[in-house]
Amino acid sequence: MPVMINQLLLPELREAIESEDMTSLDSFCEILHPSAIADMLQELEDPTVYSHIFKRVQAHNRARLFEYLPDEIQDELAATLPVEDMAKLIEHMSHDERVDLVKRMDDRREAEIMPLVARAEREDIVRLSKYDESTAGSIMTTDYASVPAEINVEEAVRRLRREAPDRETIYYVFVVDADRHLIGFLELKDLIVASPWKKVSDIMREDVIRIRAEMDVEDAAAMLAQYDVLALPVVDADGKLLGIITHDDVIDVVIDAATEDAHLMGAVQPMSAGYLTTPFGETLLKRMPALVILFGAEMIASFVMQGYDKLLHTFETLMFLVPVIIATGGNSGSQAATLVTRAVALGELDVKDWYKVALRELFQGCILGISIGVLSIVAVNLLSADENVARVATVLVLALVAVTTCGSLVGSLLPLLFLRLGIDPAYSSGPSVASIIDVVGIGIYLSIAAAILL
Amino acid sequence: MPVMINQLLLPELREAIESEDMTSLDSFCEILHPSAIADMLQELEDPTVYSHIFKRVQAHNRARLFEYLPDEIQDELAATLPVEDMAKLIEHMSHDERVDLVKRMDDRREAEIMPLVARAEREDIVRLSKYDESTAGSIMTTDYASVPAEINVEEAVRRLRREAPDRETIYYVFVVDADRHLIGFLELKDLIVASPWKKVSDIMREDVIRIRAEMDVEDAAAMLAQYDVLALPVVDADGKLLGIITHDDVIDVVIDAATEDAHLMGAVQPMSAGYLTTPFGETLLKRMPALVILFGAEMIASFVMQGYDKLLHTFETLMFLVPVIIATGGNSGSQAATLVTRAVALGELDVKDWYKVALRELFQGCILGISIGVLSIVAVNLLSADENVARVATVLVLALVAVTTCGSLVGSLLPLLFLRLGIDPAYSSGPSVASIIDVVGIGIYLSIAAAILL
Repeated sequence: MPVMINQLLLPELREAIESEDMTSLDSFCEILHPSAIADMLQELEDPTVYSHIFKRVQAHNRARLFEYLPDEIQDELAATLPVEDMAKLIEHMSHDERVDLVKRMDDRREAEIMPLVARAEREDIVRLSKYDESTAGSIMTTDYASVPAEINVEEAVRRLRREAPDRETIYYVFVVDADRHLIGFLELKDLIVASPWKKVSDIMREDVIRIRAEMDVEDAAAMLAQYDVLALPVVDADGKLLGIITHDDVIDVVIDAATEDAHLMGAVQPMSAGYLTTPFGETLLKRMPALVILFGAEMIASFVMQGYDKLLHTFETLMFLVPVIIATGGNSGSQAATLVTRAVALGELDVKDWYKVALRELFQGCILGISIGVLSIVAVNLLSADENVARVATVLVLALVAVTTCGSLVGSLLPLLFLRLGIDPAYSSGPSVASIIDVVGIGIYLSIAAAILL
Repeated sequence: MPVMINQLLLPELREAIESEDMTSLDSFCEILHPSAIADMLQELEDPTVYSHIFKRVQAHNRARLFEYLPDEIQDELAATLPVEDMAKLIEHMSHDERVDLVKRMDDRREAEIMPLVARAEREDIVRLSKYDESTAGSIMTTDYASVPAEINVEEAVRRLRREAPDRETIYYVFVVDADRHLIGFLELKDLIVASPWKKVSDIMREDVIRIRAEMDVEDAAAMLAQYDVLALPVVDADGKLLGIITHDDVIDVVIDAATEDAHLMGAVQPMSAGYLTTPFGETLLKRMPALVILFGAEMIASFVMQGYDKLLHTFETLMFLVPVIIATGGNSGSQAATLVTRAVALGELDVKDWYKVALRELFQGCILGISIGVLSIVAVNLLSADENVARVATVLVLALVAVTTCGSLVGSLLPLLFLRLGIDPAYSSGPSVASIIDVVGIGIYLSIAAAILL
């Protein structure tokens, strides 16, 4: 992690805080990038000094610093800073970030602060708050640069120059008509290269890639990444420009989506915050459902075994091999589920590819099972020395091939089935696939054993 | 996925290809965004038409289209297009993408094409090829805009205007001295806002965030995302500017890292391509090692059970409960491993936090175990009706609490141990944690049973 320089400065910062050495504190806040100050605040892990240091930061840097802080510290500051400072801060924050902040505030605090925020900014916050978290609208910002089509290049550059400090990006300029319909697009560099007297409408591109505010936020992120652009314009049903989504927000969406998928695949419900910052009770509740459901599933495996109690009594080696059978089936199933779920998340696989997946996993499972089966012959000979060892080994090899194949098939097709049913494929996690295989696998194993040994 | 419009056009495209309707093909290639043409080529899944269609694309769009294509189709084209066309294409590709392409070519083809590439471009490729894939240097491009410090703003804008079409981004302008040491930084908008007669050195920022070419590529990606910038300058040990890494390459790094982690956590080695495009044999080899090692681990569980064969014969309910015990321990371990591994990948947790993690998981494991334990009392009563049922239930509850706690601890601490040893924490996957718990869990379970029942 590239924070070494901050960690070197940390002891000095602590000393400056303790000795109330304001000159040093001011120079810290002045020379460091807002992102570096944000890192150091986090390292301090001391809520009492957050607002203390925050106030030393120069006014024009405060909004940027604030946006680099994690939600918990933002909320801490939002609750403790004077209301006038908060109102000023909200006016200067980027339009998408401040909506999230206001949404997290409690109603009383919000009612204290919002009347002090300038009216245009307040209305903007209300407008952006209405989009659901899963839509592109929720990460949209209204901080975009736009110009009318009929002005000339010189006038356009003059307008952008005036607006520049307030816009999230002026590198992309959207061209709108009198009703704010999106009719064209320019890059700032097009304006720089063009003759000053040309009209915007003469040099703009009309084939603007655009998305609807209701589009799924992960699809919007994939689209921005696919087209390698800095920002995508967001329009309503009439084609009116509502805002833009930008490259930095998309990186966050990609990271959040990967975390959510990883959690689901590890049989944990998606959590609201980080590992140490999610409340203890919430983590428990996110883990409990999967554990209980899987416990219930494994009980079925117990009942299946009970149905074969005579067989297990007569050939005790069979009993000792139960963990090997269910673990091998479960592991091959987890592998297949992981491969397919990730491929679906990356857009490589779709439901219509199910037969290709099934065919591939059928052969993968068979070959993996045969290989493990050969190894298992050695293992059985170590475990048992009686006259049945050859027959038990035959049961084991057949059972391993069957559970590995079955595991690979279930593990690969379950995510596609979930996708078809409109459920996130990541729910077909390793543990849940493994539990299905445990039950099926024990059934297969003991019926093969009964057929050969009895 | 936002490719609906392409899918609508697909039948028409196929028809144009079959009837060799060149006018339609040309108009397809003209009106569609290069990214959309790339999508449609992939949908066609017919290598014989790739070069056919590629040649219809206007020369100035070819390099962009080519970069949107997946590696397999790029390689197919690189092997079939005339060498002169390939040389021209390589000259126009972005500097980072073409290095990857040339690295993948076989030596003979490379020897045919490279002499036809302009000398300056050829030297650039050689320079960029020397960086290892895991370093920031490997995703760096030399397509950056730079100006000397002593010229004025007007002259700087004039230079950028001249260079604009060739640069990956001119929105960030790096200021260098006569030896190409990085001494400052400007955004294009700073140049637009500044008075034309001011010197670059008067308006440039000197506190440029920079990275070394040897930096780990994932750390570099995290840094770019953290600072919310479009590009980061890359320097050598002397502070000379070597190139830049840009926002679009970083999104790819983030996605690739998430895929690699997901695969490792599902007990699959990282693969070279997508699910259906990775060769069948390679997939087998990436799955086999984990399955074999875990099979070996489970055999230990079998030997542990063999050591308690008398106990298992006397109390057969104990035997039926083996799947429940090992699955519950394994599942809680998978959950803990997932949570901690992902938190480490996001930079939330470090080795020094191990005691916080241990304490949290100790309590999580206990509470989860007690809850499942209570449920299990019902289950045992369904499974067994003899006089020992109360004692067996006691064994089961105690064993569940023990294995769940033990699973949570092993699952959470193993990733941190791996991190400490310099191994990717994602190797402590769900399946491998589950296997450790299987062996330990059966040992705990049967020794508790022996203590209470014998």
